Amino acid sequence: MFLRIDKLQVELPMAEEPDAVAAQAVQELMGGRFGEMSTLMNYTFQSFNMRGKDKIKPFYDLVASITAEELGHVEAVAATINGLLTGAAPREEGAATKHPLEGIVGREGLPHHFLLGGQGSLPYNSQGLAWNGDYVFNSGDLVLDMLHNFFLECGARMGKLRVYESTSNPIARELCGYLLVRGGVHQVAYAKALEKLTGVEVTKMLNIPNISNNEIPEAKKYQDQGIHTVLYRFSPDDYKDVDKVWNGVRPEQ
Amino acid sequence: MFLRIDKLQVELPMAEEPDAVAAQAVQELMGGRFGEMSTLMNYTFQSFNMRGKDKIKPFYDLVASITAEELGHVEAVAATINGLLTGAAPREEGAATKHPLEGIVGREGLPHHFLLGGQGSLPYNSQGLAWNGDYVFNSGDLVLDMLHNFFLECGARMGKLRVYESTSNPIARELCGYLLVRGGVHQVAYAKALEKLTGVEVTKMLNIPNISNNEIPEAKKYQDQGIHTVLYRFSPDDYKDVDKVWNGVRPEQ
Amino acid sequence: MFLRIDKLQVELPMAEEPDAVAAQAVQELMGGRFGEMSTLMNYTFQSFNMRGKDKIKPFYDLVASITAEELGHVEAVAATINGLLTGAAPREEGAATKHPLEGIVGREGLPHHFLLGGQGSLPYNSQGLAWNGDYVFNSGDLVLDMLHNFFLECGARMGKLRVYESTSNPIARELCGYLLVRGGVHQVAYAKALEKLTGVEVTKMLNIPNISNNEIPEAKKYQDQGIHTVLYRFSPDDYKDVDKVWNGVRPEQ
Amino acid sequence: MFLRIDKLQVELPMAEEPDAVAAQAVQELMGGRFGEMSTLMNYTFQSFNMRGKDKIKPFYDLVASITAEELGHVEAVAATINGLLTGAAPREEGAATKHPLEGIVGREGLPHHFLLGGQGSLPYNSQGLAWNGDYVFNSGDLVLDMLHNFFLECGARMGKLRVYESTSNPIARELCGYLLVRGGVHQVAYAKALEKLTGVEVTKMLNIPNISNNEIPEAKKYQDQGIHTVLYRFSPDDYKDVDKVWNGVRPEQ
Amino acid sequence: MFLRIDKLQVELPMAEEPDAVAAQAVQELMGGRFGEMSTLMNYTFQSFNMRGKDKIKPFYDLVASITAEELGHVEAVAATINGLLTGAAPREEGAATKHPLEGIVGREGLPHHFLLGGQGSLPYNSQGLAWNGDYVFNSGDLVLDMLHNFFLECGARMGKLRVYESTSNPIARELCGYLLVRGGVHQVAYAKALEKLTGVEVTKMLNIPNISNNEIPEAKKYQDQGIHTVLYRFSPDDYKDVDKVWNGVRPEQ
Amino acid sequence: MFLRIDKLQVELPMAEEPDAVAAQAVQELMGGRFGEMSTLMNYTFQSFNMRGKDKIKPFYDLVASITAEELGHVEAVAATINGLLTGAAPREEGAATKHPLEGIVGREGLPHHFLLGGQGSLPYNSQGLAWNGDYVFNSGDLVLDMLHNFFLECGARMGKLRVYESTSNPIARELCGYLLVRGGVHQVAYAKALEKLTGVEVTKMLNIPNISNNEIPEAKKYQDQGIHTVLYRFSPDDYKDVDKVWNGVRPEQ
Repeated sequence: MFLRIDKLQVELPMAEEPDAVAAQAVQELMGGRFGEMSTLMNYTFQSFNMRGKDKIKPFYDLVASITAEELGHVEAVAATINGLLTGAAPREEGAATKHPLEGIVGREGLPHHFLLGGQGSLPYNSQGLAWNGDYVFNSGDLVLDMLHNFFLECGARMGKLRVYESTSNPIARELCGYLLVRGGVHQVAYAKALEKLTGVEVTKMLNIPNISNNEIPEAKKYQDQGIHTVLYRFSPDDYKDVDKVWNGVRPEQ
Repeated sequence: MFLRIDKLQVELPMAEEPDAVAAQAVQELMGGRFGEMSTLMNYTFQSFNMRGKDKIKPFYDLVASITAEELGHVEAVAATINGLLTGAAPREEGAATKHPLEGIVGREGLPHHFLLGGQGSLPYNSQGLAWNGDYVFNSGDLVLDMLHNFFLECGARMGKLRVYESTSNPIARELCGYLLVRGGVHQVAYAKALEKLTGVEVTKMLNIPNISNNEIPEAKKYQDQGIHTVLYRFSPDDYKDVDKVWNGVRPEQ
Repeated sequence: MFLRIDKLQVELPMAEEPDAVAAQAVQELMGGRFGEMSTLMNYTFQSFNMRGKDKIKPFYDLVASITAEELGHVEAVAATINGLLTGAAPREEGAATKHPLEGIVGREGLPHHFLLGGQGSLPYNSQGLAWNGDYVFNSGDLVLDMLHNFFLECGARMGKLRVYESTSNPIARELCGYLLVRGGVHQVAYAKALEKLTGVEVTKMLNIPNISNNEIPEAKKYQDQGIHTVLYRFSPDDYKDVDKVWNGVRPEQ
Repeated sequence: MFLRIDKLQVELPMAEEPDAVAAQAVQELMGGRFGEMSTLMNYTFQSFNMRGKDKIKPFYDLVASITAEELGHVEAVAATINGLLTGAAPREEGAATKHPLEGIVGREGLPHHFLLGGQGSLPYNSQGLAWNGDYVFNSGDLVLDMLHNFFLECGARMGKLRVYESTSNPIARELCGYLLVRGGVHQVAYAKALEKLTGVEVTKMLNIPNISNNEIPEAKKYQDQGIHTVLYRFSPDDYKDVDKVWNGVRPEQ
Repeated sequence: MFLRIDKLQVELPMAEEPDAVAAQAVQELMGGRFGEMSTLMNYTFQSFNMRGKDKIKPFYDLVASITAEELGHVEAVAATINGLLTGAAPREEGAATKHPLEGIVGREGLPHHFLLGGQGSLPYNSQGLAWNGDYVFNSGDLVLDMLHNFFLECGARMGKLRVYESTSNPIARELCGYLLVRGGVHQVAYAKALEKLTGVEVTKMLNIPNISNNEIPEAKKYQDQGIHTVLYRFSPDDYKDVDKVWNGVRPEQ
Repeated sequence: MFLRIDKLQVELPMAEEPDAVAAQAVQELMGGRFGEMSTLMNYTFQSFNMRGKDKIKPFYDLVASITAEELGHVEAVAATINGLLTGAAPREEGAATKHPLEGIVGREGLPHHFLLGGQGSLPYNSQGLAWNGDYVFNSGDLVLDMLHNFFLECGARMGKLRVYESTSNPIARELCGYLLVRGGVHQVAYAKALEKLTGVEVTKMLNIPNISNNEIPEAKKYQDQGIHTVLYRFSPDDYKDVDKVWNGVRPEQ
């Protein structure tokens, strides 16, 4: 069961002017194979499907709890895209006959941002392809699922860095910085889960690609606040056994 | 932002024996065009993307609030599928060489329930096709979006009735009964929203298909409890303006 | 059974110069979820599949008859795209070695207009994705199917307005104007069908989005001719019971 | 422009009892890569897109004219599927609670015939996948397009034979017999078109697979009537230059 | 550049009788997300795209060399499916009219094995969906690509075990046994690659799922021959630096 | 079974500067319906699936042998795309914060070349859609499969000419020239196969589209070397019966 609160997890700057090209790139973080819909839906299905929840409770709590945070990440990506598209085609009196979309559609960004959607975020990747359920992996084998999640977060980290590299737009950069830090927490969490399950020191394999969050000013800001060391629970009372996985040293990233 | 609580919205009966065929049919309520992932994701994107939230706050509150309940519906559908698959292929010592999946895969239900997933729910429809983001509609035109949502809930009502007709399995029937009642609330809610916006009495157009919930014992049970007259908020403090849409008479259904 | 006549339903202006970007946008009216292939194929399958045609003959006649007109709409969209692409890459003697497609492919419009197709219309939407049969809805429940069709025409109206807003190209605008008027007739027709079936005044819910056809010069022209008040039959002798649905006042649009 | 007549091209026998498995197989002739939607849509787009129609008028007339007949073939395939599904799940008073679809969905035929569609034909192939526009080929090179069409009709012939081999159901067999004969006409027509254009005797390459229509009783019946020697025009007055392609000897098939 | 030799990598038993259901399950090893087409194409693209091949030569040699073996695995999967389908529908004189496919299509296995393909293997998964290029991952970051490959081989191992569990057919079992052993070599190889690159002992994380190859008689047979300890090069003279990755102890599996 | 050699079939010029637009166009030759992955995979599956190899050995040898060459063609296409993308986004110290992808992603070429892939070739077509197994045709009817292959090679020839026309980039042109010549050999080979099987002079139908390879300087160069007259075997010892198909006069092209 889920509750909703009318608040964004991260404070995003106001857009100075519309930027449909950046909006297109950020869609990769929404509906791409390694975007936030993918992390959300993988953890959603895994947590819904886990059997024998008593025996594996710390891992269940971990995945279930991260799911709730991922919902907020999808929301933040949507807010970013919306900010980037706001004002792209101002509609005034008689707007239709003035062709407010001329010079935009087919030249900048995704045509569906304007022709099908309402200048808002879409469940698409940066190439305009819809997210789909084939991106969900849930084998029922706990170790394999944790390995998948670790790989998924590594791929997601790469995606955030690449979108960051593709734009200097401050809203998009702020989003990437925030997601690099919070996604980093999840990457570490699944590495720690694998360590508990297999004894292999997966936390030594974090910096993929090999760029530290501290080299990214928009990420460093959040690491300076220390939020990269906290695993949020996003639940009034449940999922407290995450502490049995999230403990010990938080490796550098 | 979302919080999670470790509890199912509806109490489902225990499975007496596995039923992979019913599990396949129930997948339509998960990943079908009119399944719960579709209602969830439509309202998710619509609520994330709405602009001018002050002017249209009651409608924003409505969509945003229903989103949170839909998450719980997806969870209930997953629990049903999991219940139907539990025990389908018991794994004991040396299970692999005894071919526990023989006679199941390719004969009953979806092969991926066994070969790719771990005998749990998948983001697929009843034919094994993955849910995808093309099922999301969000034009940015409030009236059109509400019309879409009303149509979507009508289609979803048909889907639940058809899955109900396809099985006598008590877990699947309990799920359908519950969703018919709660989905009915959302169908009425969007009808009322259209009425506020256009003056057209859409609430007179509810019984699609023309079978009353009271003819379905598993739905009547919940209507007798009166839960079909309540629009849940699923939020500690927000979205209170749903009352500006959800008021007046609750039509029969 | 169908007959074909070698004539276009609407007279389109000659293209002054090629406009691959407008051609890309107009593809949304061809193969998009709310394009003319979708209206065509929805009504095709619904009319093919209707049972008990005696009892519901006026509705069968309505859907069957509109199908035939939609075929002509697909033809008009194709003619528009072809007009917009004509001359984009003139082929003369030795054309291949002069790279006639250079500067076009990958910069303007859809690559497949040039690399796969022959500079003609494709069964694609504006993002280059092929139309597919998942866009067809036919539940077998007459009220639900009519509700779907009404929603579909509302969505199609939005699509035509958006494509209109995206270009000042006169061929594309002429097409949009014509389709807004004729699609408007179908929107009204399905609203009237719903009124007959449910008693709800759906015809009061037409202007979605809330821009009158009369504000669009290319549409007003046709409304001034009165063609928005006529439901064509496109059949030598059949489907005459459309009059039992298409009667009474034609609401403003 | 198209006209519609309320009549089927072929007379199909009444169904004795429902046969959801045959209905599934016949879907291959509807929405498969070589089904009737494919032949229809290929010729539709090719005829819409042809340039320089004066110079290549006989070929334009051929493709345009065949298009109209193909529409009727799609209609016949739909009628067959509908006949095979009629009565599969009789709906009486209180039908829902009696589970009329139990024992059908997930065991015989396509789940969507019952859960999404209304026990009618769908734009799907035999595996439940939607037809899509990638099946359309239209290069703009006349010879290549005619070669494609010849290959398409050969593949379609194979498909009809295979569906015929998969069932003894008399409705399905009647459909296959009729389509083998009429599709055979189109196969010959494109072979003749290639001969006119290239001088190569393509009409010697017809019997793919190498089974004569006369070995199939349901096809032989129509060949005995001589309808395999006639190229219908399906137009009141147009496309008369088909005679410039369809002439000379009609090879055995 | 590639050379081909007319020989199968593994000797498969003769089929005793056709088994279309097993053939359907084995398709998961062909075109599934974790099937042999996926391993083949991932390594194909990675090896084609690697830059700076001098610096990373041992890893390039590893991926390039495994690619060639994977081609042979796809061949072995195809041979297995073909063996399972041989004789499913014997074609004799007048076969068409005897309906050789009746009772098969729509009841056992994939309809396309009979209606579209020629009773041979298809590039599909066990649910009849075509393999597609979205299953290829190639980030250009060497560590991330190796991590992906290790995860892919773990998922592939699970898939082979599940197909094994789904059938007692001796051809299918022989294939699974062989692939478990050879795929195990690749799983170890990528684990060793990650160890060289990161220092993390990934080879301790092999048994996913936690069933030893030695518990599977058809796999144990090959391990007893020692072929699980050899990394084949499948090249006359190249890729010799695989030895810089494939060395040290071969962990139990 | 396949062997691999670390060498490209064709020598490509060095890139002078990156050209992401040409890279996008060349993707059509990789993952398009008529690209090299399609020719490769069609012949791969056909050769794997052929039954009765003794009776039809020359045709088996032909398809099997061409398969091996096609693998090298895919490799050459990949090398071309990689050459065109090299240097598009140089990564130096601190590269991330300098936004090396700004001005590229969303403006030139495919976003996934940068955001998901590592500036290398992808299994996509020019519109960013993944290659998929539906492009494989293998009916099991030898004549029909040869006809398909002949059509496929004609379509592939058109694709190469169109990509050539779309760019003046010397790497892309060199690739197109080479593939036109080698693909021409395969086109002739399948024409000859059809001639052997049916007696129809298909080799007279080669120049589709009607532009001679000798008009393309980059193709003429290879024809002057005579490589258009040789059918390579790409096998140490097998497939020698290709000579029973590849003999007689090599028609002009």
